[in-house]
Amino acid sequence: MPEQRVSVLGASGYAGAIAAMLIHRHPFFELAHVTARSEAGARLDDIHPRTRVPMELESWDPDAQGDVDAALVCWPHRAAAPAVAALRERGVRVVDLSADFRLRDRGIYEDWYGDHGAPELFGAGVYGLTELHRDAIAGADLVANPGCYPTAALLGLAPLARAGLIGDVIIDAKSGVSGAGREPTTTTHYISADENMTPYKVERHRHTPEIEQELAGQGADLTVTFTPHLVPLAQGELVSCYVTPARDYEESEVLDLFDDAYAREPWVELRLGPPGVIEVRETNYARLSVHCDARTNRILVFSAIDNLWKGAASQAVQNLNVMFGRDEREGL
Amino acid sequence: MPEQRVSVLGASGYAGAIAAMLIHRHPFFELAHVTARSEAGARLDDIHPRTRVPMELESWDPDAQGDVDAALVCWPHRAAAPAVAALRERGVRVVDLSADFRLRDRGIYEDWYGDHGAPELFGAGVYGLTELHRDAIAGADLVANPGCYPTAALLGLAPLARAGLIGDVIIDAKSGVSGAGREPTTTTHYISADENMTPYKVERHRHTPEIEQELAGQGADLTVTFTPHLVPLAQGELVSCYVTPARDYEESEVLDLFDDAYAREPWVELRLGPPGVIEVRETNYARLSVHCDARTNRILVFSAIDNLWKGAASQAVQNLNVMFGRDEREGL
Amino acid sequence: MPEQRVSVLGASGYAGAIAAMLIHRHPFFELAHVTARSEAGARLDDIHPRTRVPMELESWDPDAQGDVDAALVCWPHRAAAPAVAALRERGVRVVDLSADFRLRDRGIYEDWYGDHGAPELFGAGVYGLTELHRDAIAGADLVANPGCYPTAALLGLAPLARAGLIGDVIIDAKSGVSGAGREPTTTTHYISADENMTPYKVERHRHTPEIEQELAGQGADLTVTFTPHLVPLAQGELVSCYVTPARDYEESEVLDLFDDAYAREPWVELRLGPPGVIEVRETNYARLSVHCDARTNRILVFSAIDNLWKGAASQAVQNLNVMFGRDEREGL
Amino acid sequence: MPEQRVSVLGASGYAGAIAAMLIHRHPFFELAHVTARSEAGARLDDIHPRTRVPMELESWDPDAQGDVDAALVCWPHRAAAPAVAALRERGVRVVDLSADFRLRDRGIYEDWYGDHGAPELFGAGVYGLTELHRDAIAGADLVANPGCYPTAALLGLAPLARAGLIGDVIIDAKSGVSGAGREPTTTTHYISADENMTPYKVERHRHTPEIEQELAGQGADLTVTFTPHLVPLAQGELVSCYVTPARDYEESEVLDLFDDAYAREPWVELRLGPPGVIEVRETNYARLSVHCDARTNRILVFSAIDNLWKGAASQAVQNLNVMFGRDEREGL
Repeated sequence: MPEQRVSVLGASGYAGAIAAMLIHRHPFFELAHVTARSEAGARLDDIHPRTRVPMELESWDPDAQGDVDAALVCWPHRAAAPAVAALRERGVRVVDLSADFRLRDRGIYEDWYGDHGAPELFGAGVYGLTELHRDAIAGADLVANPGCYPTAALLGLAPLARAGLIGDVIIDAKSGVSGAGREPTTTTHYISADENMTPYKVERHRHTPEIEQELAGQGADLTVTFTPHLVPLAQGELVSCYVTPARDYEESEVLDLFDDAYAREPWVELRLGPPGVIEVRETNYARLSVHCDARTNRILVFSAIDNLWKGAASQAVQNLNVMFGRDEREGL
Repeated sequence: MPEQRVSVLGASGYAGAIAAMLIHRHPFFELAHVTARSEAGARLDDIHPRTRVPMELESWDPDAQGDVDAALVCWPHRAAAPAVAALRERGVRVVDLSADFRLRDRGIYEDWYGDHGAPELFGAGVYGLTELHRDAIAGADLVANPGCYPTAALLGLAPLARAGLIGDVIIDAKSGVSGAGREPTTTTHYISADENMTPYKVERHRHTPEIEQELAGQGADLTVTFTPHLVPLAQGELVSCYVTPARDYEESEVLDLFDDAYAREPWVELRLGPPGVIEVRETNYARLSVHCDARTNRILVFSAIDNLWKGAASQAVQNLNVMFGRDEREGL
Repeated sequence: MPEQRVSVLGASGYAGAIAAMLIHRHPFFELAHVTARSEAGARLDDIHPRTRVPMELESWDPDAQGDVDAALVCWPHRAAAPAVAALRERGVRVVDLSADFRLRDRGIYEDWYGDHGAPELFGAGVYGLTELHRDAIAGADLVANPGCYPTAALLGLAPLARAGLIGDVIIDAKSGVSGAGREPTTTTHYISADENMTPYKVERHRHTPEIEQELAGQGADLTVTFTPHLVPLAQGELVSCYVTPARDYEESEVLDLFDDAYAREPWVELRLGPPGVIEVRETNYARLSVHCDARTNRILVFSAIDNLWKGAASQAVQNLNVMFGRDEREGL
Repeated sequence: MPEQRVSVLGASGYAGAIAAMLIHRHPFFELAHVTARSEAGARLDDIHPRTRVPMELESWDPDAQGDVDAALVCWPHRAAAPAVAALRERGVRVVDLSADFRLRDRGIYEDWYGDHGAPELFGAGVYGLTELHRDAIAGADLVANPGCYPTAALLGLAPLARAGLIGDVIIDAKSGVSGAGREPTTTTHYISADENMTPYKVERHRHTPEIEQELAGQGADLTVTFTPHLVPLAQGELVSCYVTPARDYEESEVLDLFDDAYAREPWVELRLGPPGVIEVRETNYARLSVHCDARTNRILVFSAIDNLWKGAASQAVQNLNVMFGRDEREGL
């Protein structure tokens, strides 16, 4: 079977560079193009040495670069949609890492993001949390790769949601600085982030409606309190979920729910004690622990991922594997 | 008025060293003795250069060192109590930084800490969260300096508790590594902590009953969900409080509660946006923000302190200032 | 004696903010104005919370702000010179933290920096390494505050230079990220600096001619090999000097040279073992150790400072103390 | 061709765990045993989650574990030698990561390390800097894997040494904290290392004679000044070499020397600008830059490696590949 050719759009960003690296190393996919806007002409391994991808970044040109089987689009939301549309017109299968195809309610999208860049395709994506939507992804031509926080939160909450256990949930999330992107800003300045931590986008982080939509899809239709925090590390994300149960339960039921959901998942690791983000750094793993606190009657779930890997680039490749009928673990 | 002589017991630990430094620099107090167990004989500024306290660490000897007006006891819980008792017998006024005199219910103390080391004094301490108990501290001979997490959490929640606004609360706390103490362990090893973060003591951190006791004292008698996390920085603590209100309220009421509580407090800073821990590093300040989230109907409070300063050593000096009738800001 | 009024120009930068904080806290000086370019109108303690200076940043206006006794100019080289000239015209005594008045050979200045912004004043500054030029500083109206690397290197090498001991010297310097300034760039991005270290400006760092000029002034007229490195910490600078001796010597002679030079200096600490930068963080101290390596016949000197304090802001205040006849330690 | 079975002794240490991980993933070698002393009985992936090696650590027992083709010995110097001897007696080919078989002059070994633990084997090892001794390694049964600093320094200096260009050299080295080992100590405590940097083992680091021996082997028989520094990062090592040339040279000659030496090396990357350690993190690469400073007439070489990978574990696997006739890049 011949290799499939894959482009990575926006390969100069953190997630894009890792996506390009993973495709470049992949035994089945061939990295056909890497694109960048302001850094076109540079070599990817000069900008991101750790990728070791000795390819030149090209300006995005759908006509010249339409000769591929698939593309990973690592552009910002709103800018991504038209590029995705151009790719789809050319029959290219797409995993889009932006938020543009994650939401299914257009009003909600517009409330949180503004106008959509390719309204004719709005809602056309399959939500690409592999562990939850594997079958739909397998047949999809357009997969909306989840946000980093939704990935971690939904993996932790889905088993409880499906069992009707979530009466209410508070999600306190912590992420390393790479989540703020590659643009140098006051926030991403070393002196701002080092030895500091702070909540950000309180009450208004855009991953909130995405978490709510997908939780509803798993059976828990509720308003979520979600607060992200910035912590001084490069890559890694920890999501602490505090669930007020909707009904009585036994601890053994909860543990069984997680075992049933994840025992056979190649990229989810259940742990008895709480996970640390270093344990999943630069991997596609999510590490979860669940705790039934008898004293408070709350269920606590901790979920750790690498925000750039399982929270973005490697999950995109996992989805690509599924789309092309490959072993989900291939190249990861 | 003559200076008052002050000893610091356990000055080789992180909080003790800072306490010694603050007393050493203090215009009113004189640092009389600094004690340590295994490091007796060494000079404090060799072990903790930043203190610039050129004094020799002595072994604790209540008879030889009873010639002081006050003492800051920076020993671990259970070990602290007998030392405090020995000091009190000699008429020395004490601020104890351990947990031994914070709790007022002996059964709860024993459940969480074990046997008490000086049962005759159990419950004899005034809880030393200065902003809440200033008057009682002024007349006290034994002040129980609060735990770091309770300090940050209670400052954030007390105004809501007093107004009957807390129906339920989840406290997600994050602390730097100095909170784990000076003993080299796997947890405090650089390679364990760097680029990592993780929840710890899930369901069973000993600051939980302390927070509950003091919240009850402010009018909110409830079971608290409290989870601390370790983050990769040296000093700093951020407490994120998620309050489900017990009754209807207006945002303006909430803001007024905080203004009324803290506008005249020298060591509490109210902010519109969420605080970062670097902003209070190596100070006695607590920085707070409060947010009424209309979408979720929750009240969010963020509280940042330096765990070794306001969370331990500098609050102890603040209390000492109050006990001796000095300006609370003196020497801080 | 009345207070002297002091302005800080460029108070929005890292060194400027600390300078403003130190003047604000100073018992003798009064902080009259703080200026900034793009951030004029903001409050200094909003931009730099740790300063706790509740003053509004003004645009620089020499006429409106000439009503001061002294100014600390924290502007970039070349831009600083005209501001210094405007201040001097109004009789204001100046400590300039830029490189504009450090060099005495105009050709060398132009080679390394380009045209000078106030040629009529070129060479008018006294080189403000307090420990070396205290008497000249006391009578000066314009003091050129040293660069951070020269401060650390010259304190370490001056005793050897004066004794004719330096035949050759290699200076390997390491600095935290704050040395790269407050502008967000790829270099100062957290993700670039974290878990990284790298040499920079190899062969061409502008502190090289400054070190050579001042070493020559101490008796060691030679070409210096100087290489700075960026290391992942916020504040702190370590300079490792490898001296090939020009003549025979005894270890005791070398130790005596350092004792004689620094035993009575309030801001220099001699240590037997090598210093760590954390030991001097946020202080005006330099910590030095000197080692005579019998195996290689080399003399090694290690010198640690805080690049923003002794390497910039606090040394400027130390100089101001000297200029106004105050105790050098005042306010530091 | 059947797989070869490989044991890793001392797999609970940092380098040992990575070595075990690399063998576990290796397409040709099979990981047969992992041993540990105090942590025997635990699973390797519980202690070092990132390895994902689900094997139980065994106590070292040469009889029970002699059923292997090769072993990587990751024990401390002096303890390693007897284990190596026991393995060699059973015909097992060994890469020893300790210092026990690196030095060829027994007097020097004893001066720096003390008595040797297997004197009958002293000097029997081939020095395993792959790029310099590939042919000898290919036929060896006992390879002495180089120290981390010698690896970086020798790769940087060997081309100059062979060309007779080194008249004198000063090596200023900087390493992350993992180089200090996994034992929790004051040095490795997060609070000691964070935001700090310091020289250590000044005049007496044991890698000095190793560098001198191997430089002599390349033609530069001289006394080396070598000073390591501890910097606040987990993994990574940068060696800055300051060479005073022994003779005249042209810059083009120097560049050619490096091109000739390394253009075809799979694990050495020549760069025009100075390398950063993050660029080689968790790889077997060494990154080098060389600079001819016309102003000082010095040659500067910067060499960056990951101290646990190319400086230990991955170079051991590279050597194992060579010993078993495999492609040097296999499994790395």
